[in-house]
Amino acid sequence: MVPGISGSDVGKKVSLSEMSRTITFPHSYGLGSGGCILERSVHRQGFLERLEAGEVIIGDGGMVFALEKRGYTKAGCWTPEVSVEHPEALRQIHREFLRAGATVMQAFTFYASEDKLENRGNKPAISCWQVNEAACDIAHEVAAEGDALVAGGVSQTPTYLSNKSEADVKAIFQKQLDVFVKMNVDFVIAEYFEHVQEAEWAIQVLKTSNKPVAATLCIGPEGDLHGVSAAECAIRLVRAGAQVVGVNCHFDPETSLTAIRLMKEGLESAGLKAHLMCQPLGYHTPDCNKQGFIDLPEFPFALEPRLASRWDIQHYAREAYKLGVRYIGGCCGFEAYHIRAIAEELAVERGFLPDGSAKHGSWGAGLAMHTKPWVRARAQKEYWEKLQPASGRPYSTSCSKPTAWGVTQGHKDLTQQKECTTDEQLKQLFQRQQMVS
Amino acid sequence: MVPGISGSDVGKKVSLSEMSRTITFPHSYGLGSGGCILERSVHRQGFLERLEAGEVIIGDGGMVFALEKRGYTKAGCWTPEVSVEHPEALRQIHREFLRAGATVMQAFTFYASEDKLENRGNKPAISCWQVNEAACDIAHEVAAEGDALVAGGVSQTPTYLSNKSEADVKAIFQKQLDVFVKMNVDFVIAEYFEHVQEAEWAIQVLKTSNKPVAATLCIGPEGDLHGVSAAECAIRLVRAGAQVVGVNCHFDPETSLTAIRLMKEGLESAGLKAHLMCQPLGYHTPDCNKQGFIDLPEFPFALEPRLASRWDIQHYAREAYKLGVRYIGGCCGFEAYHIRAIAEELAVERGFLPDGSAKHGSWGAGLAMHTKPWVRARAQKEYWEKLQPASGRPYSTSCSKPTAWGVTQGHKDLTQQKECTTDEQLKQLFQRQQMVS
Amino acid sequence: MVPGISGSDVGKKVSLSEMSRTITFPHSYGLGSGGCILERSVHRQGFLERLEAGEVIIGDGGMVFALEKRGYTKAGCWTPEVSVEHPEALRQIHREFLRAGATVMQAFTFYASEDKLENRGNKPAISCWQVNEAACDIAHEVAAEGDALVAGGVSQTPTYLSNKSEADVKAIFQKQLDVFVKMNVDFVIAEYFEHVQEAEWAIQVLKTSNKPVAATLCIGPEGDLHGVSAAECAIRLVRAGAQVVGVNCHFDPETSLTAIRLMKEGLESAGLKAHLMCQPLGYHTPDCNKQGFIDLPEFPFALEPRLASRWDIQHYAREAYKLGVRYIGGCCGFEAYHIRAIAEELAVERGFLPDGSAKHGSWGAGLAMHTKPWVRARAQKEYWEKLQPASGRPYSTSCSKPTAWGVTQGHKDLTQQKECTTDEQLKQLFQRQQMVS
Amino acid sequence: MVPGISGSDVGKKVSLSEMSRTITFPHSYGLGSGGCILERSVHRQGFLERLEAGEVIIGDGGMVFALEKRGYTKAGCWTPEVSVEHPEALRQIHREFLRAGATVMQAFTFYASEDKLENRGNKPAISCWQVNEAACDIAHEVAAEGDALVAGGVSQTPTYLSNKSEADVKAIFQKQLDVFVKMNVDFVIAEYFEHVQEAEWAIQVLKTSNKPVAATLCIGPEGDLHGVSAAECAIRLVRAGAQVVGVNCHFDPETSLTAIRLMKEGLESAGLKAHLMCQPLGYHTPDCNKQGFIDLPEFPFALEPRLASRWDIQHYAREAYKLGVRYIGGCCGFEAYHIRAIAEELAVERGFLPDGSAKHGSWGAGLAMHTKPWVRARAQKEYWEKLQPASGRPYSTSCSKPTAWGVTQGHKDLTQQKECTTDEQLKQLFQRQQMVS
Repeated sequence: MVPGISGSDVGKKVSLSEMSRTITFPHSYGLGSGGCILERSVHRQGFLERLEAGEVIIGDGGMVFALEKRGYTKAGCWTPEVSVEHPEALRQIHREFLRAGATVMQAFTFYASEDKLENRGNKPAISCWQVNEAACDIAHEVAAEGDALVAGGVSQTPTYLSNKSEADVKAIFQKQLDVFVKMNVDFVIAEYFEHVQEAEWAIQVLKTSNKPVAATLCIGPEGDLHGVSAAECAIRLVRAGAQVVGVNCHFDPETSLTAIRLMKEGLESAGLKAHLMCQPLGYHTPDCNKQGFIDLPEFPFALEPRLASRWDIQHYAREAYKLGVRYIGGCCGFEAYHIRAIAEELAVERGFLPDGSAKHGSWGAGLAMHTKPWVRARAQKEYWEKLQPASGRPYSTSCSKPTAWGVTQGHKDLTQQKECTTDEQLKQLFQRQQMVS
Repeated sequence: MVPGISGSDVGKKVSLSEMSRTITFPHSYGLGSGGCILERSVHRQGFLERLEAGEVIIGDGGMVFALEKRGYTKAGCWTPEVSVEHPEALRQIHREFLRAGATVMQAFTFYASEDKLENRGNKPAISCWQVNEAACDIAHEVAAEGDALVAGGVSQTPTYLSNKSEADVKAIFQKQLDVFVKMNVDFVIAEYFEHVQEAEWAIQVLKTSNKPVAATLCIGPEGDLHGVSAAECAIRLVRAGAQVVGVNCHFDPETSLTAIRLMKEGLESAGLKAHLMCQPLGYHTPDCNKQGFIDLPEFPFALEPRLASRWDIQHYAREAYKLGVRYIGGCCGFEAYHIRAIAEELAVERGFLPDGSAKHGSWGAGLAMHTKPWVRARAQKEYWEKLQPASGRPYSTSCSKPTAWGVTQGHKDLTQQKECTTDEQLKQLFQRQQMVS
Repeated sequence: MVPGISGSDVGKKVSLSEMSRTITFPHSYGLGSGGCILERSVHRQGFLERLEAGEVIIGDGGMVFALEKRGYTKAGCWTPEVSVEHPEALRQIHREFLRAGATVMQAFTFYASEDKLENRGNKPAISCWQVNEAACDIAHEVAAEGDALVAGGVSQTPTYLSNKSEADVKAIFQKQLDVFVKMNVDFVIAEYFEHVQEAEWAIQVLKTSNKPVAATLCIGPEGDLHGVSAAECAIRLVRAGAQVVGVNCHFDPETSLTAIRLMKEGLESAGLKAHLMCQPLGYHTPDCNKQGFIDLPEFPFALEPRLASRWDIQHYAREAYKLGVRYIGGCCGFEAYHIRAIAEELAVERGFLPDGSAKHGSWGAGLAMHTKPWVRARAQKEYWEKLQPASGRPYSTSCSKPTAWGVTQGHKDLTQQKECTTDEQLKQLFQRQQMVS
Repeated sequence: MVPGISGSDVGKKVSLSEMSRTITFPHSYGLGSGGCILERSVHRQGFLERLEAGEVIIGDGGMVFALEKRGYTKAGCWTPEVSVEHPEALRQIHREFLRAGATVMQAFTFYASEDKLENRGNKPAISCWQVNEAACDIAHEVAAEGDALVAGGVSQTPTYLSNKSEADVKAIFQKQLDVFVKMNVDFVIAEYFEHVQEAEWAIQVLKTSNKPVAATLCIGPEGDLHGVSAAECAIRLVRAGAQVVGVNCHFDPETSLTAIRLMKEGLESAGLKAHLMCQPLGYHTPDCNKQGFIDLPEFPFALEPRLASRWDIQHYAREAYKLGVRYIGGCCGFEAYHIRAIAEELAVERGFLPDGSAKHGSWGAGLAMHTKPWVRARAQKEYWEKLQPASGRPYSTSCSKPTAWGVTQGHKDLTQQKECTTDEQLKQLFQRQQMVS
């Protein structure tokens, strides 16, 4: 038991920095030491039970972006064959998220649909089944080292973008679901959908498993790419069967929460109930249009200056909590320390700090050990909370103008192909793009 | 053999994007597959022999910052007990740097001196010997998976900052060196010294091992913190016995190369010879004063917007190479993808691409697989080379004013203590700091 | 007649830079030389007749800000006693606007209401009648030097802000109108109203003169400060009797045109007709909230970096024209060269360039005379149109957070006083302000 | 006599805001009312006598830029034919500077040399004699309305840039000097020289008049465009006969003062004495190279975001004073309110405030009359002193990269021509420029 945090204190507003400075963190030297510092239930309670009990579920961060930087996933195809090719790398990043406080180990099955694995010359020669199975396997392994849940997820498909039939699209989702059922994940997620229609089809497939279903669109306040409002999207997701709804990816935390607010209002006015979920970008994107960060000129290789600090994420976690969101995680750009920031911000509400806080101290308390006194002076919440960090880039702007091709599902430009884009095609695209911008 | 890159082609100027697009990367599914795509010597040639043969040595990135984000090192004390506490995490990051093209596995012994491990309430209860030994062990293990060298390093000490005697300071270095000798590293590094005097003492100790010695100061063009010019620092490092000299940490690539240019000129005018080495920050710091990024208000928890893109690092690698630097790596902020950027920029000169490029493609060639045509259009060197990325932060500036306490070694403010800073002391520091800025 | 611009060419899209380069400008050495280069009607046609004929009326710029910089008006009280104190200074600025192409000489009667002249310790000891009369006199004098119309205007009053009766407020407007009628201005303007209710009262008074009435609110897309939407505001202004409606001051050109678009849509849906008028700030204010630039921390003494370039204003003039606005001018920040930019952008539509273009040349054509070839190279439309100018301020942000006291008419904080604010009151306000921001 | 400011107080450090708030400003309703509020000598003491008595001489602002905005001078040729064409406009701007506190009425003879008046198709058909005589006439007229001195000036010539002989260049200067002697100016200025050699020739000519000579180069800390250091330039100017030396134009106040510091050190080490003079840009130019703001891409039509605030200029005035500069004025970008800021900052040292302060109040004291309390709260020195103003331009950077053609006097690219640049030549320049940047 932490001094000052008794059972009845949970949910009570307590000074976090005070809390972190009085806690003696146990040092955990091995794996799975379970060295959390507050009592917590060690039985793996169900996903929906936790949400219904008002518990905060912390999601994980952005696998595909983090692993791209580490050298294991490829920007462009964005497929997760790392689960087969380099299981040790995937296992390690799961452990980092667990240690940071994530309640969910989401198997790395993003874009692991059969059609995506074969798209545009991407030939990993590893089957859809193999990739999904290995991902679930690793997620289960790490989840067992802590008190975590395992989820499997499906995302939007080239098949849908290419205007194929509902049956074709659903068949794609079914293949991934078959693995999730066999591997017995705790719940399933339909995430990263730009069009609510495709998400509905995904939910309808996932519901056949009788597992809890969470569904997030990658939309902002302007709604989906077919022009369906955020409010209407939420209604349709719930009516399709999702118990948890929200947004992921494509927009920064602030914009994403604005979208969720609209979704929440939509559900309320329709008399519907659902838990709320938010897994935004770890990048600042105030300048995005409806298509999100894909259309920013910096995507995906020059987003660094937009990266959120841990303090930005603490602010996000608090705002999300205030709005009633109880599944709070991140997407592209979120690394372990961002997830830890959520766990630290909500430590009082949850009753414990994550293992990873042993190497942090809330609000930079660890700086009290720095050799230089003026750096020790920064070990203060007030300091970090107010700081607006400089970019170090005098030749850069603060905002960009997004690309604006204005095409989406149904347009021939988006028909997916199995052959790699040729140099000649690339050159034409480059010229066309320069004329647009 | 890569088509178009024969032995005699190495060093010849070839279009990299052309090269990367014609290479079929072997997919390496296991560890240590050694899946490099161009012939390279598989015997572990010595460190100095490689440099004397004109080979480019690629260093690794910033362990302490990267592991802090992953939850294994603590900002403030910055000590590397992770080697004992979480060897799997350290092993994984070494593998990432190896895969990215690093030629050196530098054992994570930064700030692993006995006095530092005990400074300001930092009590890991793990001995100096244990930390250094475990670090060397892991470095050797991963180096063996590729063609890498192993180095051990010492850095500046609280003992020196506290104004202790030369003998006291040298005794501290000796304790780490004893481990490096026992563990048989390939060479030793004296790095991260703010005062050339302490670096000289370190070199004098390291030289007793008969191993090659590389030495880098964390200085910029203004020289060391006692007012010794960059040129004079270089001369003193070489005269003390270092065969490789340069700078690391504290400044961005551009500023660091400016400092190295001054060091090079100093050596030339003194008629001295040495190899040049550069391991700068992965952060943009045009606004730093003499003390480097420590004094920026964003240090260490809000540096994100300053983070270099891979394209910034390709530019750096080219400039370093042109200046004659042949040991090219990074420090805080450098992650695997930055190291890969060095390896990709210098692929023609070195004759091969790193394994990690199988998941990249030079200049973003992998984007040719993206589903949206306007993103495929970005698979062009010209696109990324010219882009100045926006910060996404309309309420942030591009530059900061550094703290300017203006004290250094010899000043009582810097006397190190074993007890943790108290809250009362922190409060006083905070007020003093606010008056200064 | 200008070569290539015949009567039938007016309205035809012609390259302006081509036009300006083929015109031989007459040099006008005296006053009132009337040296315009295209034929234009020399008889002073009426205000409404011109608008109904589809003519573009160009307003003038921001008297009070420009004269503050010249040393003749005082920020804070913002009153126009310069007409009595320094008629030569007022005459000169009128001439500059005339020369720049302004069609209207708006007598400088802004804030020349009796209650405003006495507010908060402002004691110029010059009567309301004197100030208004002298202003009209000077406007007539300069208008006679060209083909300009004369207007008199009223603005929001301390009486209204202090919650006085409709009769009290209307009595204030009547006193200014009496002068305008006596001085026989061509039309009257109700401008700079934050609350549509007060504007309605002003229009009702002005209508009694039987002169044409134009009315602008200082609102943005969010509507007036009592929460009335922009669309509803437009409807109420027209129903109160205004023949020309729109916005002035408080927001930048882009935001102002967005507000006018909403007003236009409101009028259309209500089946009402009116001419549209826009006189925005010459400052960029993307970060304003509902209260406009008053609430920006830079107001009024550090707005310089926000100042529009002539190219920004050409863009504005074109957008305003496209939207159907036919009374196009400016407010605070607009100087003569901004007005000239409107006249140059719409030279083809209007059929002539202003006298002041003899010292310009469209799109910087005059640079063709520069001594340095790389500056001559900038004499190109393409160059200036694309340029995004740097601020030269690495320690400044691009956006500010506005003050947000959130009080307006009806709140006791806004009760106006005749006594000067005391130092003690100022100190209290300063502290209160710092807590808010 | 102002309360609290007796004769013996002058030079004593007194709180300015306190001073300004206790002064009752006389309102001056006519011209030349001489309404200054502190006693000052009314006899026109000589220029050098004042400097030798330690008095601060305040220069005027940037005529050519200010009149360009008002529509009377043309960017590109930059010639001052306004003195003949629109004397009323020139008279008015002189009055504004006088009212703002300028001690010198510098006749507007910039670029009024015969060769410049004929350069590149500039054909005003007004003779060199006429332009210079009218300028002196107007300067005398306004100077007589206050206690001001009159100066005439010469600047760099196309003849020199075109590599003509010393005799040719000196003949050009002589023609202007003949007018200054006939019009009996108080002193003469050689200003805006990029090459110290040409300035020396100018000084040698001016010295023949037996009038005091001030000389300023448009250089920064890097020295003149032929590579002569700032220190050496100062020495050569003094040895050529100038009694006052310094810099004007091309760089911002901060950079200009850095250059003057180097000049001062040069003079001291050479054992020479001279008064110091500084008339910098009113624009922020931290990003300039050696050629100054001419090479910034924003020159001359998009410099707005760089414009200094009055507070920037107060800071400059203080720094200049501390450095020992006693002739403090401005160049391009400086308007009347900037000159007033110098006069207000140095009011205690000079013993009086300028007439124009009747419409200001130090540090924004006039805001105490604003209707909104949160704006009244800004009537505080502390508020404005700390404010870093936002640009309102999220798509703009803070710095630009200057053009770098790297050619200067002696290079054929700079040979001046009498014919206008053709469209074909412009097109070629534009393409060449785009390749350079």
